[in-house]
Amino acid sequence: MKVSVLFSAGKDSSLAALLLSPFFEIELITCNFNILQTWKIARSVAKELGFPHRVITPKSEIIEKALDIIMQDKYPNNAINYIHRKALEHVARECNNNKTTIIADGTRRDDRVPRLSLAEVQSIEDKYKVNYIRPLIGYGRSAVNILVNHYFEIEEKESEKIEKADYESELRELIRRRYKEEMIYEIFPQHHIQSRVIRFKGVQVIK
Amino acid sequence: MKVSVLFSAGKDSSLAALLLSPFFEIELITCNFNILQTWKIARSVAKELGFPHRVITPKSEIIEKALDIIMQDKYPNNAINYIHRKALEHVARECNNNKTTIIADGTRRDDRVPRLSLAEVQSIEDKYKVNYIRPLIGYGRSAVNILVNHYFEIEEKESEKIEKADYESELRELIRRRYKEEMIYEIFPQHHIQSRVIRFKGVQVIK
Repeated sequence: MKVSVLFSAGKDSSLAALLLSPFFEIELITCNFNILQTWKIARSVAKELGFPHRVITPKSEIIEKALDIIMQDKYPNNAINYIHRKALEHVARECNNNKTTIIADGTRRDDRVPRLSLAEVQSIEDKYKVNYIRPLIGYGRSAVNILVNHYFEIEEKESEKIEKADYESELRELIRRRYKEEMIYEIFPQHHIQSRVIRFKGVQVIK
Repeated sequence: MKVSVLFSAGKDSSLAALLLSPFFEIELITCNFNILQTWKIARSVAKELGFPHRVITPKSEIIEKALDIIMQDKYPNNAINYIHRKALEHVARECNNNKTTIIADGTRRDDRVPRLSLAEVQSIEDKYKVNYIRPLIGYGRSAVNILVNHYFEIEEKESEKIEKADYESELRELIRRRYKEEMIYEIFPQHHIQSRVIRFKGVQVIK
């Protein structure tokens, strides 16, 4: 039975897929709006993890709406949440057609964004007749780190410098093209460290 | 690295342990107040699952206090939550002594009881310097059922008839001894179906 896991090449979505993999067939799904080819780095990390990988391209209206939200808020959270919800709905709709019924993501207990409310989670499940699993939502930062350090080698860099297939990369680029470079620094928090998986060490029980 | 999983012999705590088992060493822990020998059924299910099992006996003040709560509320939820929090703290304290740092339970997304608030979860982590993982809190009822049906044979019966090592069994017995049989039916909801694991079918990816 297949679980379609939204995948950014970061440690959280990689770990979510890993935790599900002894029990379900995993398919990694990266959301890309054709603004940057961020899906390429996701594909290479997916290969390292050993899971099949697929790219979805939701309608450009979605990132345009996210841009409106972020320019109004002057803060990224609502825009990123909006894209994440739309990406989940995109996969949920597809999965529904293909009779696959489980979607997942790497949301952690201590995440603020992207993070759907419980009502939104249940609404997606009800509307699209899917199961939406969040394998890491019961794990705090420290428990996630134990697993990540054991199973992955990761690279950590400032958000703007990391090669990763998250929503932020394409939003930043869109702001750069439509407004000016400085606007990015007004909107996104400075010194925000992001991570990407470099190597998967294989699954064995942590000693 | 050991994870100590609070274990009732029911499907949820069994599944929580199973989901953690490819990544951590599992120890199942059953809470018992020496009122009924409910730990025996937990031991036999633990054996079926193939995990080591240990019984803890927190101070009798705890179940006495829970009895006070339930007799005042005339409803079981707060009393059961109280015992669950004290059982977690008991294990957290012990684990801390033994340098083990991870505790877990089978709380599901759609559970109302036993279920700690996020603040209580973080408070236990901070106070006892442990990680408290809830592997099923990101799984809805339907996703849990897919896994349970695949990996376990279960027996389902009314709460009062099932042989299971949950807090409810000993609380019911204490009410029976101290008050009268009818009081149980005033307090606990009628026709509440509970489950117990009968057989473990082994881990393989669900097709």
